[in-house]
Amino acid sequence: MSELIEQLRAALPADAVRTDPDVLRSYAADTAGFCPAGRPAALVLPRTVEQVQHVLRTAHARQVPVVPQGARTGLSGAANAVEGCLLLSLVRMDRILEIDPVDRIAVVEPGVVNARLSRAVAEHGLSYPPDPSSWETCTIGGNIGTGSGGLCCVKYGVTAEYVLGLDVVLADGRLLSTGRRTAKGVAGYDLTRLIVGSEGSLGIVVRAVLGLRAQPPRQLALAAEFPSAAAACDAVCRIMAAGHTPALLELMDRTTLRAVNEMTKMGLPETTEALLLAAFDTPDPVPELRAVEDLCTAAGASGVVPAADPAESELLLQARRAALTALEAVKGTSMIDDVCVPRSRLADMLEGTAEIAERYGLTIGVCAHAGDGNTHPTVCFDAADEDEARRARESFDAIMELGLRLGGTITGEHGVGLLKKEWLARELGEVSLELHRAVKAAFDPTGILNPGKLF
Amino acid sequence: MSELIEQLRAALPADAVRTDPDVLRSYAADTAGFCPAGRPAALVLPRTVEQVQHVLRTAHARQVPVVPQGARTGLSGAANAVEGCLLLSLVRMDRILEIDPVDRIAVVEPGVVNARLSRAVAEHGLSYPPDPSSWETCTIGGNIGTGSGGLCCVKYGVTAEYVLGLDVVLADGRLLSTGRRTAKGVAGYDLTRLIVGSEGSLGIVVRAVLGLRAQPPRQLALAAEFPSAAAACDAVCRIMAAGHTPALLELMDRTTLRAVNEMTKMGLPETTEALLLAAFDTPDPVPELRAVEDLCTAAGASGVVPAADPAESELLLQARRAALTALEAVKGTSMIDDVCVPRSRLADMLEGTAEIAERYGLTIGVCAHAGDGNTHPTVCFDAADEDEARRARESFDAIMELGLRLGGTITGEHGVGLLKKEWLARELGEVSLELHRAVKAAFDPTGILNPGKLF
Ligand SMILES: Cc1cc2nc3c(=O)[nH]c(=O)nc-3n(C[C@H](O)[C@H](O)[C@H](O)COP(=O)(O)OP(=O)(O)OC[C@H]3O[C@@H](n4cnc5c(N)ncnc54)[C@H](O)[C@@H]3O)c2cc1C
Ligand SMILES: Cc1cc2nc3c(=O)[nH]c(=O)nc-3n(C[C@H](O)[C@H](O)[C@H](O)COP(=O)(O)OP(=O)(O)OC[C@H]3O[C@@H](n4cnc5c(N)ncnc54)[C@H](O)[C@@H]3O)c2cc1C
Repeated sequence: MSELIEQLRAALPADAVRTDPDVLRSYAADTAGFCPAGRPAALVLPRTVEQVQHVLRTAHARQVPVVPQGARTGLSGAANAVEGCLLLSLVRMDRILEIDPVDRIAVVEPGVVNARLSRAVAEHGLSYPPDPSSWETCTIGGNIGTGSGGLCCVKYGVTAEYVLGLDVVLADGRLLSTGRRTAKGVAGYDLTRLIVGSEGSLGIVVRAVLGLRAQPPRQLALAAEFPSAAAACDAVCRIMAAGHTPALLELMDRTTLRAVNEMTKMGLPETTEALLLAAFDTPDPVPELRAVEDLCTAAGASGVVPAADPAESELLLQARRAALTALEAVKGTSMIDDVCVPRSRLADMLEGTAEIAERYGLTIGVCAHAGDGNTHPTVCFDAADEDEARRARESFDAIMELGLRLGGTITGEHGVGLLKKEWLARELGEVSLELHRAVKAAFDPTGILNPGKLF
Repeated sequence: MSELIEQLRAALPADAVRTDPDVLRSYAADTAGFCPAGRPAALVLPRTVEQVQHVLRTAHARQVPVVPQGARTGLSGAANAVEGCLLLSLVRMDRILEIDPVDRIAVVEPGVVNARLSRAVAEHGLSYPPDPSSWETCTIGGNIGTGSGGLCCVKYGVTAEYVLGLDVVLADGRLLSTGRRTAKGVAGYDLTRLIVGSEGSLGIVVRAVLGLRAQPPRQLALAAEFPSAAAACDAVCRIMAAGHTPALLELMDRTTLRAVNEMTKMGLPETTEALLLAAFDTPDPVPELRAVEDLCTAAGASGVVPAADPAESELLLQARRAALTALEAVKGTSMIDDVCVPRSRLADMLEGTAEIAERYGLTIGVCAHAGDGNTHPTVCFDAADEDEARRARESFDAIMELGLRLGGTITGEHGVGLLKKEWLARELGEVSLELHRAVKAAFDPTGILNPGKLF
């Protein structure tokens, strides 16, 4: 047994420090493709803040890299092992410590699964809006690490808006408390928001105070079919310019619709070039749905199907939620991108992506949080076909380049990790990158936290 | 003419560099009491980004402190001159560069006055929610500097939620771009939010991309009278726990009501101990107002007056907006505090403040953004009466101590500046303070930006 392991075990239960090669292998990577993973020295599964502090103190003293992990549903390689690192999995710290309906906050440990929190607060008539499609498995700690989004962001915003305060174990094991339990507060720098989206590179989140909302009425949705992606994007622009605030506004292109049909036998309209889903969760959504229907028709929709009730709306949404898995099934492997453009440029983004698919001879399906301009072009390929895999990787870069050219960002919600490291440098530019490095050094001067990710 | 002035003038129009003692004196301080101001070396009023860069390069080379200023309506001394500094006023950079109804963003220079932006976006059917009571005079740059709030925050959040991207001139004159124009984005650290609320200590904001919302319907309000502050606070808790999300939820105590009556002859109910104002801006606010009326009655309200129409609602709001000026008039001087507590502790905060008023033999009126737990205990005193002024200052500290004891923060929206420097250290604790210093050093290694403020 190495000295490192011995030291870790000195203050951790035996089953909290794992070195079995099989286990290490299975924890070495998140869900991203094309991202290398190193061999970890050990997997540590603490249950308490003190145990996390012990791990960091030990790692810091020995200068061993530490990679925090949630459920490893991440799509950028941000949770991948670094050679010789400690994998620090927070999944056992999974208690919901407090739900307060008057203060509208929840206090949770990082390993709480998103859906579990959502259900727990629903029992108090509250909602925790951020709803990544992976919500049944991903953790709040991972959501905070990536700053994740979801379907509801067009109305309710992303994870960052809901994190009020954090307890963070720093690189040297000290405990930092940021933020507040109050609805408002501007005391000092916003270190809370600095840590949200920092992908485990500034500290280990061990507790979070989350803001909650009153639970809205159940959604009512409509589906609109369009003869072209451009017409669907035009409808998105009209809907937003007319002052509507849908609870979701999602787009699926033809490739995606076909893939979903293939997998689910849902019978979605395959002849259409794009399907738009819009939903409202106001007390009386019918007038707004009617107005949106008219706007879709004006933009050229060939048909609009309003859901009769929330149950029917849920069915429509299931098609959207199945999109990723369905696209993956097309050729066995898929690579999902996450480029966000100003919504006025959505049509250009879709058109450009279609051109890229043609240029590289690939199948690329696009689904999008269209109301936010956040597209997920998803490259379908056969990983066993070397040439196709290479083209897939290259088309991915072309898509990011397109996004930046359209005034967008290389990542709307999935983060940078390993996958988009070079692209981050390009998006930020030299001045910003230098400040990023200086901020990193302020938190983690010796660089043991998730090294080699982000930049 | 000193060398410094000469260098500044080399790349600035003559009227952009002022050294007249009268002018310097009049720009030396913001609106806070009890805060010292040093003598500035010059006042600089640039019109372009390049001019700001020139100012910073000059100051950096000579190690002259720079204090950015908006409209100096700040209430914490954050914009006060430091001895020998350059006052860098951004008020002439006051162009609204872009308003885009599809992308729902505005791009502005920092000197744009909040109300001017609000009116300009209203013409496009949009709203920029943050609405500090000083909105007719304060600037967007100052709002970003302090992270300011207002009445609408209980529903729409504070300035931080609306700042998507910034152009910032750094201490050495380099230009940093942060954030994005898109609705979402998680590329790199959230430097945008780090700069919001940093009180001019990390960089000079020269351009901001602001998120906008669709304009909501006009508000409908009600006023509820209570026989005790505790009953009014109980009503606040009931309203929030029942899942309502009012567009504002404001409280005025008896001292405040009397002061407003005295000044405005509005005829507010002086016999009541507290007045609650609630407003909704949903398409049909009547059912929710009725429910809130019932909750107020259940909490012990002695009377509830619903406004008949938006015009009547506006009248009720005017009383609230007049509160500060009215309290100032009571004894000639007032000192406004800004303690935010969890809303479940609002009653304790009001009770504790009343005890402090009695202990120090002072008149302290409280108005509050009650829905957020953000109280503004306002000490009324005669500045010519030395003993009373001393007691006023001491009671102010007692109020902050009370706020912290109740799990609150020393500042909900006004910032730290000079006034609350010692208290910030106490709220943050040593670990956080050390990180604050490290972050400051990452941005401004030689410490020329607004030195001596915050910490
Ligand atoms: C099918 C599918 C659908 C998805 N849909 C969405 C979607 O709609 N929207 C979206 O935004 N994302 C989506 N994702 C991506 C992913 O689910 C999110 O990024 C999620 O937030 C990751 O959570 P996790 O618990 O799996 O974290 P991990 O993948 O384990 O980690 C993510 C990052 O956070 C860091 N981290 C984890 N825990 C901590 C901690 N306690 N302290 C500090 N850092 C920590 C890690 O180091 C890593 O950098 C999807 C993924 C899949 C597989
Ligand atoms: C009557 C009255 C009512 C008020 N009501 C409210 C209220 O309801 N809510 C609220 O939050 N506040 C309120 N305030 C406080 C004040 O108006 C706000 O803090 C406002 O945001 C300050 O804006 P300003 O333009 O006056 O900035 P200033 O006071 O000039 O500066 C404020 C801070 O921002 C910095 N700063 C200014 N411009 C820049 C820039 N371009 N780049 C970097 N830093 C900069 C300054 O250095 C300083 O630290 C009120 C004040 C008064 C007098």
